[in-house]
Amino acid sequence: MQFSAKQVAGILGGTIEGNDEVMVSSLSKIEEGKPGSISFLANPLYTQYIYDTEASLVIVNDNLELSAPVKHATLLRVPSAEKAFAKLLEMYNQIKLNKSGISPQAFVSDKASVGENAYIGEFAVISEGARLGKNVKIYPQVYIGDNVVIGDNTTIFAGVKIYSDCVVGSNCIFHSGTVIGSDGFRFATGEGAQKIPQIGNVIIEDDVELGANCAIDRATLGSTILRRGVKFDNFIHIAHNVEVGENCYFAAHTVVAGSTRIGKNVMTSGQVGIVGHLQVADNTIVTAQSGLSKSVTRPGEVLMGSPAFDANKYRKAFVHFRNLDGIVNRLTEVEKQLKNKV
Amino acid sequence: MQFSAKQVAGILGGTIEGNDEVMVSSLSKIEEGKPGSISFLANPLYTQYIYDTEASLVIVNDNLELSAPVKHATLLRVPSAEKAFAKLLEMYNQIKLNKSGISPQAFVSDKASVGENAYIGEFAVISEGARLGKNVKIYPQVYIGDNVVIGDNTTIFAGVKIYSDCVVGSNCIFHSGTVIGSDGFRFATGEGAQKIPQIGNVIIEDDVELGANCAIDRATLGSTILRRGVKFDNFIHIAHNVEVGENCYFAAHTVVAGSTRIGKNVMTSGQVGIVGHLQVADNTIVTAQSGLSKSVTRPGEVLMGSPAFDANKYRKAFVHFRNLDGIVNRLTEVEKQLKNKV
Amino acid sequence: MQFSAKQVAGILGGTIEGNDEVMVSSLSKIEEGKPGSISFLANPLYTQYIYDTEASLVIVNDNLELSAPVKHATLLRVPSAEKAFAKLLEMYNQIKLNKSGISPQAFVSDKASVGENAYIGEFAVISEGARLGKNVKIYPQVYIGDNVVIGDNTTIFAGVKIYSDCVVGSNCIFHSGTVIGSDGFRFATGEGAQKIPQIGNVIIEDDVELGANCAIDRATLGSTILRRGVKFDNFIHIAHNVEVGENCYFAAHTVVAGSTRIGKNVMTSGQVGIVGHLQVADNTIVTAQSGLSKSVTRPGEVLMGSPAFDANKYRKAFVHFRNLDGIVNRLTEVEKQLKNKV
Repeated sequence: MQFSAKQVAGILGGTIEGNDEVMVSSLSKIEEGKPGSISFLANPLYTQYIYDTEASLVIVNDNLELSAPVKHATLLRVPSAEKAFAKLLEMYNQIKLNKSGISPQAFVSDKASVGENAYIGEFAVISEGARLGKNVKIYPQVYIGDNVVIGDNTTIFAGVKIYSDCVVGSNCIFHSGTVIGSDGFRFATGEGAQKIPQIGNVIIEDDVELGANCAIDRATLGSTILRRGVKFDNFIHIAHNVEVGENCYFAAHTVVAGSTRIGKNVMTSGQVGIVGHLQVADNTIVTAQSGLSKSVTRPGEVLMGSPAFDANKYRKAFVHFRNLDGIVNRLTEVEKQLKNKV
Repeated sequence: MQFSAKQVAGILGGTIEGNDEVMVSSLSKIEEGKPGSISFLANPLYTQYIYDTEASLVIVNDNLELSAPVKHATLLRVPSAEKAFAKLLEMYNQIKLNKSGISPQAFVSDKASVGENAYIGEFAVISEGARLGKNVKIYPQVYIGDNVVIGDNTTIFAGVKIYSDCVVGSNCIFHSGTVIGSDGFRFATGEGAQKIPQIGNVIIEDDVELGANCAIDRATLGSTILRRGVKFDNFIHIAHNVEVGENCYFAAHTVVAGSTRIGKNVMTSGQVGIVGHLQVADNTIVTAQSGLSKSVTRPGEVLMGSPAFDANKYRKAFVHFRNLDGIVNRLTEVEKQLKNKV
Repeated sequence: MQFSAKQVAGILGGTIEGNDEVMVSSLSKIEEGKPGSISFLANPLYTQYIYDTEASLVIVNDNLELSAPVKHATLLRVPSAEKAFAKLLEMYNQIKLNKSGISPQAFVSDKASVGENAYIGEFAVISEGARLGKNVKIYPQVYIGDNVVIGDNTTIFAGVKIYSDCVVGSNCIFHSGTVIGSDGFRFATGEGAQKIPQIGNVIIEDDVELGANCAIDRATLGSTILRRGVKFDNFIHIAHNVEVGENCYFAAHTVVAGSTRIGKNVMTSGQVGIVGHLQVADNTIVTAQSGLSKSVTRPGEVLMGSPAFDANKYRKAFVHFRNLDGIVNRLTEVEKQLKNKV
């Protein structure tokens, strides 16, 4: 799609400076702007780029003061360039993702129900007893198992697999390769690891976004639960019977073992591990590659290390660790002096 | 499906106390019991819940003594509530997974063979020369490459990909997103990393369960092998030409590099790494986030750290690490005293 | 396929010793050779196996001297057994992977273009506006989103998902389960983590190989870039707006956070983490399970630990760490002696 500068001003408001007929069809950063693209300038550190950028249209703040002529770009002055651009991004995204209709090459069980205005792509499978809400977007090659429930406006990208009996809220987004409801990793010990049937499910509340290639295991009994607003990066592993509280935010390759209960607003950096059967208080922060091995009872702690403890203490200990050779040399020197005194 | 309490007693044996016509259709934990569900009570710590649970039917031990009236639940007394419930779980699971028939929307090569009573779901691909055993369950969107062999009673969940020439035993379970037989990561060094063709395969013996989103690479030449009874959690990476011994048990995000040979009954916790070309003795245990960098020759060692060494020694060293600031302060104090004495 | 020893000699050149009519149909290691297989002997350490190997045909160096009769194998003498076998491997691989034709069960948008001699397998999706080069191989169940461009001779194995607007070069290989172009993990903070639309793309240059189950996120704006010759093992996570330089080589479970720029020929071992917004110099090496938390400005550094620093210093410090209990005992002894002197 192409828009003229004038049409963009019609959508976002603001005042045009320059050629209002210039056409734009893509978005760019101001320092990488190409003809035909639209960009924005909000951070004063980037003002230097406005004069030479090849972007055809740049959204700027009303109060921007120029110290030289702008060579190529038409400007659109608005009260907040950042907000206007965010609005534009969202519109662009909505247009890009505006798939609709049920592909004749999808499989939809005649015992499934699909809400109005749904999109179901090629080679997707909607199994018996599944119930899909309104405006749901199911991309190609997605698998929705028996009796799965999906709330309104949820988008599920190509190839996601959701096992039977799981429940998904509204306004969720799941990225490709993510698996929801696979069996928990539990085997009775003793001679030959006997499989314990995993007959619970996964419940995912509203406004949850899961990155690519995550795996959320079903509960043995009961439910593995992701509360409202949870956001996961790629490769997150959530074991059976875990509960993740509202608005938790886990970076890539975070692993949570079975039956752990995590409070609200907990943040992990990449490659964090959390062992099973813990309670983790609200607002806990775990730094990259750390391993939480004990429950956290005081909200807001920052933890580091494997096993993890207070991050400030960890950093202090690590400074000494780096210098251990020097410390041992000091100790050896002390021993020598003591010996000489004897 | 719905069953009456009387029907459940007919299956499990035991004596009913209460309404034997009450209907149940789901399973629950006693502390989360809902009307229409069946639960069990084996652990005395949970006896407190029996009086108020809303589960419609609770399986209890013969010798349970009640100290108050049970408000809602019908009881079924059996010799072992735990075993009876496990039996019930297994039956429930079997019914849930009892898919059958070959979907007309699957692709089955006319040069493939499929054993009796197989299930092949929609958009699955069974390639030329593949041979599937009896009672095999292939869920939708699975890919079975050329000449792959799958033993009897093996279940492969939606979206698993198995590359050509791999061999899978009987009674295996593979979860969604798992990839078997992708190329090993080997490139000839020198100018431009030249690909070394990976023309071996993967052999998986009987009774192996693989979690979601695992990747088991094919051998360069010969076979990558998972021996009988191996159980993997999610996101396990097994590189080319690795051999994993019988009944090994790897937790999520464990990584094994190329050509390593692992003995029997080896256990890893989450995010463990094992470097290439090692020999790991039977019954070795590696704790979470540890990295094994040397062969283990003595069976039954417990290893910790990165690089890993004896876990008890690691824990002792780690106590001092946490206290390094205090240790350095003691050293500084000693130095000061010595100086003052000079 | 079967070939006689004479036919193999016809392809590779060289002189036959023994039965030139013996038939071979598979490849094996010399120490695991089976009748009907072809093997090679280049490393003198393996010469011992030549006498008893059951391989039917063994490629050996011209100048091999035998100290006993060869029991079973026909020999093919060539100037370099290693090079001849590599050539054979490559031919074998090409035959094995020589799929062609567009399956009538694939979905190819009539607004997509497909180059000559392409293979598109069952249940693959080629979306509107996609452009595929010559000799491209798209295995079953692959998803190619809107406007994706794929260069000549690229092979994409079963189940890979490529989101809209991504660009892939020539001669690339992507393994099953890999996801390209999923949204970056960026949310505006404040009340409720507001999604920031991710409208950039991923650009992958020529000669890139990605292992199984990788995830390469699209840029927020602009492009996430993998330069020419990049090789990734399985489970690699590349966040939004990252740039990975030419010929980088990342082992399994390596994680790179957002906006980091990595130079050429950088190597990581398994489970390495690299935090966001860094610059990493050419030829940097990061050892297994290490975490890079600061930019690297000097090319060729070797880094270890979490957070990582110079590997030699790390190893020295780690020797002391293992011995911390002994060090603390020495300190305690020193304190005791000092006290006694007072």
